[in-house]
Amino acid sequence: MWKPDRHSRQPLYEQIADHIEQRIAYGEFPPGSLLPSERKLAAELGVNRSTVIMAFDELRATGIVERRTGSGTRVSTTKWEIAPKHTPNWKRYAQGGQFLPNLPFMRKIREALTRDPSLIDFASGELAADLAPINEIAALMSEHRYTSYLGYDNPQGYIPLRQALVSYLAEHRNIRATEASILVTSGSQQSLYLITQCLLSPGDAVAIEDPSYCYSLPMFQSAGLRLFRLPVDPYGVHPEDVRALYKKHRIKMVFTNPNFHNPTGTVLAAERRKQLLEAASELALPIVEDDPFSLTAYEGTPPSPLKSMDEIGSVLYIGSFSKIAASGLRIGWMVAPREIAERLADARQQMDFGLSVIPQQVAAQFLSSSYFAPHLKRLRMQLLFKRDLLVEALNKELPDLIRFAVPSGGLHLWCKLVPEIHDGRLLEEGIRRGVVFVPGSVYGSDSGFVRFTFARARTEDIPAGVAKFAEALRAAIGG
Amino acid sequence: MWKPDRHSRQPLYEQIADHIEQRIAYGEFPPGSLLPSERKLAAELGVNRSTVIMAFDELRATGIVERRTGSGTRVSTTKWEIAPKHTPNWKRYAQGGQFLPNLPFMRKIREALTRDPSLIDFASGELAADLAPINEIAALMSEHRYTSYLGYDNPQGYIPLRQALVSYLAEHRNIRATEASILVTSGSQQSLYLITQCLLSPGDAVAIEDPSYCYSLPMFQSAGLRLFRLPVDPYGVHPEDVRALYKKHRIKMVFTNPNFHNPTGTVLAAERRKQLLEAASELALPIVEDDPFSLTAYEGTPPSPLKSMDEIGSVLYIGSFSKIAASGLRIGWMVAPREIAERLADARQQMDFGLSVIPQQVAAQFLSSSYFAPHLKRLRMQLLFKRDLLVEALNKELPDLIRFAVPSGGLHLWCKLVPEIHDGRLLEEGIRRGVVFVPGSVYGSDSGFVRFTFARARTEDIPAGVAKFAEALRAAIGG
Ligand SMILES: Cc1ncc(COP(=O)(O)O)c(C=O)c1O
Ligand SMILES: Cc1ncc(COP(=O)(O)O)c(C=O)c1O
Repeated sequence: MWKPDRHSRQPLYEQIADHIEQRIAYGEFPPGSLLPSERKLAAELGVNRSTVIMAFDELRATGIVERRTGSGTRVSTTKWEIAPKHTPNWKRYAQGGQFLPNLPFMRKIREALTRDPSLIDFASGELAADLAPINEIAALMSEHRYTSYLGYDNPQGYIPLRQALVSYLAEHRNIRATEASILVTSGSQQSLYLITQCLLSPGDAVAIEDPSYCYSLPMFQSAGLRLFRLPVDPYGVHPEDVRALYKKHRIKMVFTNPNFHNPTGTVLAAERRKQLLEAASELALPIVEDDPFSLTAYEGTPPSPLKSMDEIGSVLYIGSFSKIAASGLRIGWMVAPREIAERLADARQQMDFGLSVIPQQVAAQFLSSSYFAPHLKRLRMQLLFKRDLLVEALNKELPDLIRFAVPSGGLHLWCKLVPEIHDGRLLEEGIRRGVVFVPGSVYGSDSGFVRFTFARARTEDIPAGVAKFAEALRAAIGG
Repeated sequence: MWKPDRHSRQPLYEQIADHIEQRIAYGEFPPGSLLPSERKLAAELGVNRSTVIMAFDELRATGIVERRTGSGTRVSTTKWEIAPKHTPNWKRYAQGGQFLPNLPFMRKIREALTRDPSLIDFASGELAADLAPINEIAALMSEHRYTSYLGYDNPQGYIPLRQALVSYLAEHRNIRATEASILVTSGSQQSLYLITQCLLSPGDAVAIEDPSYCYSLPMFQSAGLRLFRLPVDPYGVHPEDVRALYKKHRIKMVFTNPNFHNPTGTVLAAERRKQLLEAASELALPIVEDDPFSLTAYEGTPPSPLKSMDEIGSVLYIGSFSKIAASGLRIGWMVAPREIAERLADARQQMDFGLSVIPQQVAAQFLSSSYFAPHLKRLRMQLLFKRDLLVEALNKELPDLIRFAVPSGGLHLWCKLVPEIHDGRLLEEGIRRGVVFVPGSVYGSDSGFVRFTFARARTEDIPAGVAKFAEALRAAIGG
């Protein structure tokens, strides 16, 4: 006789509901007939009576059975007699799988922006239309004729783009990569996803920064990883913390965003970079360096990546066009040992069969074009200008209520709120007044922080956006 | 004291090797020192001596320890004294995760094609350059100016493309979709991946066709699904088999490719379509209809999709540009209940943050352009021409050694080989003679079949390719 499977991920009551539904569907219990009593079924199946009651409740909710007090549970006549047709229980399917939903605050912000595109956007971590090289890309696309064969692309990515990236990495990031060690990805996001899904196994321990890039958190959790935190201070993470986590939890990998860290804007200090690499090589521990922001350095040379100092090959390096050109291109790259790049490319075939050729062509052309260097220069100047506007407005509107360090690169400014505040309440007050920003708790930190992205809002909107935020903050304190 | 974890996925010997390496790294066993004997360690850790021997072998392979018969196992001096630096054990990382490697035959074919692009290609399931609308796409790209904002796109896909797909689906496939029920994907592959990863859980039973699209097999297995087969006869799958699998294994979903099935070319008979939908609605069972080929119907009207007859919403419908336009665009779509489309879009944010905007713009323009209808017409004619060439050549070269049904749509011809043959041997003989094709066992069937794709090879190469295949087959029989 059938028994529920106690090792299954599916709750017992759901298994029982499914099972009864199946017996009804097969005519064992015809429409109108009485089902066995809860007590009897519980004994038969070896479960608590309360479990059977939950199963019956579930069946009742979908109209498959009816219960009347005192007269037991019967198979519905209406549902089954006239039209024995059932839409799949999509709600339950939507709960399947390993993917946790993304963060509720991020969905709330997205929904608010969709409802009202006139909101001043300090939340989306990307460049405004006037910072992105839209005209340059349009010009390139009209200069070139896209007549090459559009078949399935090379699994590691379009070869001319990988060649252009070899030069780019040598020139801008002091990284000596080869075509074979590069994997082109759908942004840094896909690089991180491939690493967590294909190189780590559920239950593995990894170290991540506290706070951390917010979309990586559900991704790590979906992969079943055990997360341990490396607090970020004004000089970045502590290499000693990495050793301690290794000792204690046998961490398998370290994820870091050392150059203009998201959300704090921190740059990992030079001495700590050396120590971190030493720890990695002593412990044979891979470091994932997520580096989307370094070329935004407003003044002076961008920080040197860990990868440029990585003598023995401990570092998987991740780059992206999203924060220096356009996030909607979805072009990123990873530099990895050849066997890793090949492994990840092979696994990706199962996920999406590789990237579209056209944006890879556009990216290759842009990187090799005379538009690239002037674009970067202009981008840095404009980001600096926007940052200054934001800092000025914050100092003017909220001199005593917030504290922040002024970032020297990146798209974001990270604020500590002096008053104790409820994150969600603050966001709602902001949306009501026409401004969105990201509550700090989204990044895995304590609440009481806010991330302002100054790259996305229109320059002229920045002062008004801060004024609205100030009002929202005062309202949230008052409330 | 530390003990290996018997419930971990990591083999015991690996855990032990890791543990010893850690103790060495922390100086517990300095360079040159003697490690405890195998017997002693085995007793300490509660494992067989052979397990400890395997752990030592692993450590020896990486040069961390040295063993000399009679004198026990010592920590290496060379490796540890001079430079205590260790590259991560990338080989082991490459074995992590849930993704099974893709099929060895497919890799072999890809490698052969990379080494020698002059091979006649009956293997790649895509259109040749002269069938794809390359000039049309190039023309569209030069007619339009791509100056729209290139930010992160809508998670469900570019809205004008979804609008164009609503019209396309109504006009060509008799499917009434709405913008909100469409999810744009990186080809059918990503649709299948999202469904298997996000709507099903490891251990779930599903029904797939036998034979089945070859890249879906490792994907299903990577998702931990239990696979049950639905044999495909000349009229497609049997609805009764679906009922039987439901009864026996509680299958949670049925995957089918009913229109010019890959690899067999079969069209599911009209009566069976009705019965399949009836079974689905009776059992509340979702059907995934993977429909990349229907618009290639050489003559007459393309078969009606199951989705067009799906009154209660049992069907998740998947389409793609890959087989009717260009696989390198990576544009596919899914029609699903709104909550499912939203769920999958949300999960995809964690994987790749959505699709590139540019190919979606190109696809939307192509669908709405006056190029689309004439392209389809020309495509069908040319596919018919290529099919006839292949059929003629096969009949001429191998009248007695093969059997096949002539397909009326799709890109492939499925051949039964009369003699008993070793799949791998045949492929090698083919590669040696300059032709590739896909051995039938790749599709999960018995060996003794071959799939010929006639869409990819150049028209003028088809007769020569078949002649080479005939030679290879004779050599493989002889051998
Ligand atoms: C640190 C970090 N990593 C990765 C990403 C993902 O960006 P993309 O996939 O667009 O490159 C972001 C985007 O905000 C980020 O800030
Ligand atoms: C039946 C079937 N489904 C899905 C795919 C995946 O194609 P794409 O992701 O390019 O749409 C293919 C390609 O061969 C196929 O034949």
